[in-house]
Amino acid sequence: MPDISDFASRSSMIASLETIKVHTEGAVLFAQIAVPPMNLLTPALVRDLVSLMQHAEADDTFKVIVFASAVPDYFIAHVDVTKVKEYREATAKLPGESSLGLLFRHISASRLVTIAQVEGRTRGVGNEFALACDMRFAARETAIFAQPEPALGLIPGAGGVQHLTRLLGRARALEAILGSEDFTADQAERYGWVNRALPASELDSFVKSLALRIASFPASALAGIKTRVNAIGLADADDFIRDSELFVQSASRPETQKRIGAALQKGLQTRDGEMDFGRLIDELT
Amino acid sequence: MPDISDFASRSSMIASLETIKVHTEGAVLFAQIAVPPMNLLTPALVRDLVSLMQHAEADDTFKVIVFASAVPDYFIAHVDVTKVKEYREATAKLPGESSLGLLFRHISASRLVTIAQVEGRTRGVGNEFALACDMRFAARETAIFAQPEPALGLIPGAGGVQHLTRLLGRARALEAILGSEDFTADQAERYGWVNRALPASELDSFVKSLALRIASFPASALAGIKTRVNAIGLADADDFIRDSELFVQSASRPETQKRIGAALQKGLQTRDGEMDFGRLIDELT
Amino acid sequence: MPDISDFASRSSMIASLETIKVHTEGAVLFAQIAVPPMNLLTPALVRDLVSLMQHAEADDTFKVIVFASAVPDYFIAHVDVTKVKEYREATAKLPGESSLGLLFRHISASRLVTIAQVEGRTRGVGNEFALACDMRFAARETAIFAQPEPALGLIPGAGGVQHLTRLLGRARALEAILGSEDFTADQAERYGWVNRALPASELDSFVKSLALRIASFPASALAGIKTRVNAIGLADADDFIRDSELFVQSASRPETQKRIGAALQKGLQTRDGEMDFGRLIDELT
Repeated sequence: MPDISDFASRSSMIASLETIKVHTEGAVLFAQIAVPPMNLLTPALVRDLVSLMQHAEADDTFKVIVFASAVPDYFIAHVDVTKVKEYREATAKLPGESSLGLLFRHISASRLVTIAQVEGRTRGVGNEFALACDMRFAARETAIFAQPEPALGLIPGAGGVQHLTRLLGRARALEAILGSEDFTADQAERYGWVNRALPASELDSFVKSLALRIASFPASALAGIKTRVNAIGLADADDFIRDSELFVQSASRPETQKRIGAALQKGLQTRDGEMDFGRLIDELT
Repeated sequence: MPDISDFASRSSMIASLETIKVHTEGAVLFAQIAVPPMNLLTPALVRDLVSLMQHAEADDTFKVIVFASAVPDYFIAHVDVTKVKEYREATAKLPGESSLGLLFRHISASRLVTIAQVEGRTRGVGNEFALACDMRFAARETAIFAQPEPALGLIPGAGGVQHLTRLLGRARALEAILGSEDFTADQAERYGWVNRALPASELDSFVKSLALRIASFPASALAGIKTRVNAIGLADADDFIRDSELFVQSASRPETQKRIGAALQKGLQTRDGEMDFGRLIDELT
Repeated sequence: MPDISDFASRSSMIASLETIKVHTEGAVLFAQIAVPPMNLLTPALVRDLVSLMQHAEADDTFKVIVFASAVPDYFIAHVDVTKVKEYREATAKLPGESSLGLLFRHISASRLVTIAQVEGRTRGVGNEFALACDMRFAARETAIFAQPEPALGLIPGAGGVQHLTRLLGRARALEAILGSEDFTADQAERYGWVNRALPASELDSFVKSLALRIASFPASALAGIKTRVNAIGLADADDFIRDSELFVQSASRPETQKRIGAALQKGLQTRDGEMDFGRLIDELT
């Protein structure tokens, strides 16, 4: 495995990332998200994601990014619900983009091919990040997916509705979102939420092999195909903007604030409290 | 289980339903369709569905409706093919809506979350009703789905084409409709026709648990999410209107009338005759 | 099984086909593609497909066409990459259509119901032909599907992107195309690439039974339903035209020409060389 110093020499900026560990192999950039103890999608992580995308897109030697977690039990937990206002600042660096939804849409629309290698839990905005990646491969034993916003009174604001409805169809998307339940990797595979569920012991080599294979193909063909697929399967920016507005509105409702407050007391945003999110939600009502 | 009188006290109108038995638990309304011997979607049942939706939507204490069957072997059979003209009257009560397709689209677009708990056969318009519900959960041993209009020379007129094409994709929707075959719950699950197939013994508690869970979440979030999902996954009213026109045209063709006549002689619209619909169709040709 | 002479008497033109063996049974036309040794989609085969469609569409006695292969191990391999210019001539007979993509779209939009019975390998344009058919049933033991254009620097030009994105969803379509891997029938079934994977021993009777059943239904209903499903699930002609342009552009790039040249040396377009396409691609890089 190439040392991180290889990468640092190509871009001192990327070496400065605080919350993402990167190493490269050929045209593949491996990005490990490291925000212990539960990979909360903090404003700092958002700033690093923006930097990473900017620099990787500007470097023609990269074709593929693989996102994985450096933290046990969590891929990306979700936003820090106590810092909603800070996210707009964190995403302001990408030209014209000032919401998580548009940052994620930027990732989907990028010429770079992105793969989410999901081990552990990912919910809410964490799941929306995974959905923004071009492909998702999940560890059968550990990966867990949820879009549980309505349990708190929220409307998903960063693309979850857009992607889940297109991937799962109307009925399964409504079940997944309105039900706010945890989905196992196998169930997520059956619903088309992830490309495939694989044994945890095989996941790493499967993803690496696919990433290196794709990275061996001409960049112009990869970018051209992404453009054509996105013209069909990626929602318009307006749809992401509208969802973001609805999220903000739903977050400001007194009932939502009350539920978030109660959930924080029950263990929301703690590593242990979110190991069993279903129980946490059940205790709210 | 709460007595029906709880519900009657909340709405004398709903207590007057002739073809639907209702009881409530919290914000969930359980509606059991009871048109023995085979739950034909008679004009009387359509009138009751219109009343039920009108009153449930007007009552803020309701968030979820679960539709099930009170009749063995059938969820909803299909329309009464001898009374096609009477349906327009039955649906005329909903403002601006005068077809089964638009009634069903009204149910899909409603703020209320609707769940079809399918045991037994559902074909044609019965299947289109199930497809109009937000989610479908099917008893593995007994549920059977079909959209067999072309076998009689008909074009599905109440949303079957719209929903099946979006849920199953072009190829499987064409197979399902053009083939006019019965689909088991397991095959329907693999095709995305239903959310899940479950053992009959677990179906009731699974659906009830999900319904109560959803009903514990803030109504504004549920309605907001349905609006956004429907903007992607629910066809325009114009598409339902066009399908309804094509159904009427196809019903008036002499070959269709001849086939319907022959099918009625072979057992169409009889409880026993439709236990094996495939045989009935095969005998037509 | 009716003799081919039955069919010849109905249309001397179709009897003149050089690359397709046809026989009929009632309203079903069985077309076996026969371009040994690997069913390359040669200009001659394209001319015959155009003739077949023209005559079958003009003959009201036909309702369904089943396409299968008369050659072991291959359904349709792909285009002859050395004769790209000749295809435009071959498709020029259909009015207003002068690309493979528009020929295939014509097949999808036809009043005739088309079924691909896939045994053996089908890749690239061969796979795009299969996708243009209304349904695909695959032999579990032998069918293999791939859309491996990017491995050569190409963008799929005849509808593969349009169909795969709509059938598989954005993420699985990107995996399938960008990864350029061979998919087994079972994996293709899980992704919705084919309707069903069946044991090879059952495939023939399953497809024949379905074709005859559909062919027993009134033609006006079949055509009306196809029109309505296509309005949702079939891409516009403009999308096929754009993909065709991008294919031509991508084919003219020096890197693409170099890769095609190298692949021809490694066994591309040979029966043996393409038995293991993955190895062939891996050796390019």
